[in-house]
Amino acid sequence: MEEVISIFEEHRIESEIVRVVDHQIAFGVTEDEGEGDEWPAIFEKVKAADILIIGTPLWLGEKSSIATQVVERLYGGSGLTNDKGQYIYYNKVGGVIVTGNEDGAKHASASILYGLSHIGFTIPPNVDTYWVGEAGPGPSYIEAEGNKNEFTMQHAKIMAYNLIHFSKMLQLHPIPAEGNVVES
Amino acid sequence: MEEVISIFEEHRIESEIVRVVDHQIAFGVTEDEGEGDEWPAIFEKVKAADILIIGTPLWLGEKSSIATQVVERLYGGSGLTNDKGQYIYYNKVGGVIVTGNEDGAKHASASILYGLSHIGFTIPPNVDTYWVGEAGPGPSYIEAEGNKNEFTMQHAKIMAYNLIHFSKMLQLHPIPAEGNVVES
Amino acid sequence: MEEVISIFEEHRIESEIVRVVDHQIAFGVTEDEGEGDEWPAIFEKVKAADILIIGTPLWLGEKSSIATQVVERLYGGSGLTNDKGQYIYYNKVGGVIVTGNEDGAKHASASILYGLSHIGFTIPPNVDTYWVGEAGPGPSYIEAEGNKNEFTMQHAKIMAYNLIHFSKMLQLHPIPAEGNVVES
Amino acid sequence: MEEVISIFEEHRIESEIVRVVDHQIAFGVTEDEGEGDEWPAIFEKVKAADILIIGTPLWLGEKSSIATQVVERLYGGSGLTNDKGQYIYYNKVGGVIVTGNEDGAKHASASILYGLSHIGFTIPPNVDTYWVGEAGPGPSYIEAEGNKNEFTMQHAKIMAYNLIHFSKMLQLHPIPAEGNVVES
Repeated sequence: MEEVISIFEEHRIESEIVRVVDHQIAFGVTEDEGEGDEWPAIFEKVKAADILIIGTPLWLGEKSSIATQVVERLYGGSGLTNDKGQYIYYNKVGGVIVTGNEDGAKHASASILYGLSHIGFTIPPNVDTYWVGEAGPGPSYIEAEGNKNEFTMQHAKIMAYNLIHFSKMLQLHPIPAEGNVVES
Repeated sequence: MEEVISIFEEHRIESEIVRVVDHQIAFGVTEDEGEGDEWPAIFEKVKAADILIIGTPLWLGEKSSIATQVVERLYGGSGLTNDKGQYIYYNKVGGVIVTGNEDGAKHASASILYGLSHIGFTIPPNVDTYWVGEAGPGPSYIEAEGNKNEFTMQHAKIMAYNLIHFSKMLQLHPIPAEGNVVES
Repeated sequence: MEEVISIFEEHRIESEIVRVVDHQIAFGVTEDEGEGDEWPAIFEKVKAADILIIGTPLWLGEKSSIATQVVERLYGGSGLTNDKGQYIYYNKVGGVIVTGNEDGAKHASASILYGLSHIGFTIPPNVDTYWVGEAGPGPSYIEAEGNKNEFTMQHAKIMAYNLIHFSKMLQLHPIPAEGNVVES
Repeated sequence: MEEVISIFEEHRIESEIVRVVDHQIAFGVTEDEGEGDEWPAIFEKVKAADILIIGTPLWLGEKSSIATQVVERLYGGSGLTNDKGQYIYYNKVGGVIVTGNEDGAKHASASILYGLSHIGFTIPPNVDTYWVGEAGPGPSYIEAEGNKNEFTMQHAKIMAYNLIHFSKMLQLHPIPAEGNVVES
């Protein structure tokens, strides 16, 4: 995540990491589950953002329950539309970063990128970055010095740049409101 | 597929349906598996195209073996680069159409769209269209008159338009060759 | 779930439904995440049970975040062994029940059954029961009278019987402790 | 595969490896697709076997198209019943072996084991064995000496033993034909 953000910073793109597990997020598929639900504050950040990257660890070869919950809550806001009548996530771009000690990164990435695409995000090419180790128990990204893995670092770079390229393109040339306007 | 193509035609976009099962496609992950392999001719069409839509039926809740083979062969060409040094699928957009008598469309879509994204295609929002019936054995799309399903038809329309919008945008404004040039 | 339980009752098999969302389950992959974590009480029930069925709704074609969390917490107990040195879930059988208004049941079932199998549960044949409706928004199981769907009801019956058959078989003939004893 | 078979041999269990890519298997979901289809001969071997293990490489984090085709053809025979009226795969046990240079083994395993379970195979605990390397391009199992990976070797052993244990148990105590008899 920091690798990608460092490239954002070089391009003067502001970013913020929200560690979702530190918040009390209610289960549900609405924008606001009421008292005590800390999702609405996070959702405001998503609505204000041009780029959304979801990061997740892997358990049993799958994205975490917290990442699943985030996708559910984003889905809960998918009924909203922008001022042109398109889904609210139109003109936003999405990406995914996955680490685990072993196996499951592509499955988690496919799941998250599909979820984002299905609710209105644009998925530029090569916006999944991951590190996993060899099969079996073993050290995680930091201990294993995953940041020395050339493949992972190259993907982080391509991902950062393509998110920037598409975000700029969509700000200059928003998706025309033709054929994709929904009844809200 | 015909619903999407009819919208393409309204916009004077030429298209061609290749029924892959009618061709002898070799198993493998290269561009050309040699004598008798009919993939290279199809691959030329892919290289010439701006938009690629993969269509698949569902078996046991998954995309077909033929769709899997198509993704493998596309992957086999992913080492090629364009004249800027980007993956050859850059500036192409991808989508997916799935039908089955029941269940599995989102899983198949996630798998195919991820595969396309991972090798360089751009995935606009809402480019997965599907029809499936209620759980259990039952009629397929045509017998069940899936073309009267409002959800499926709306998705076909949004998909067609977003593929057109992004394809035009990427022809006018190709992805800058910055940060995403690979060593071929 | 009630369909399956009614067959259990005919065979004098006791059961209990735990609605996990009504409990405060901590995120994590241990048996006990400490103060306020209500998982340990549920985990005691799992350890005492011969049969475990996980039920889940579908969101974006996937199992829910709560079902994901349950699998993570079960995984957190997978380091424990029985008195023969096998994983603690040996001689227990697992199944899955899924409902959603449309699409995703097989994907969710595959994910949950694999998770259970990977940590030591036995998966008898045909222990996934589901109901989903036609593609697109629509009524859920109860409103749509999914209990009149012959396929779903037949699967519920086969599932209940095969869980009973295998559970009885494994109680009479536990898995021999040969080749599958792990260092705890 | 050889690791598992060597344990089978110690227990005087005969086995045969069928390299499916060397055969002309027709696409389809029947038992026999007619002239030139070499599946029927393989299907006879499956019907005669007590244990079926599907092996697959990984491409883009998924099982191969050939493995997908095998599952489709097995599904094509799932309408057949044994002399008690149960699905023909009852009392057979299934497992999976996966290798790839990196990532995807659990996803492929979940897919294959679910497919087998859904058509009537029993899935004992821990019958998925895999080896994958660290994220990114790299050597495959043989070059990387995956057979020195302790996790992979332990899983191969547990898998072999549990397949043997359950196969013997189901031969001595076949699944009772109660609640799981289907109309053929």
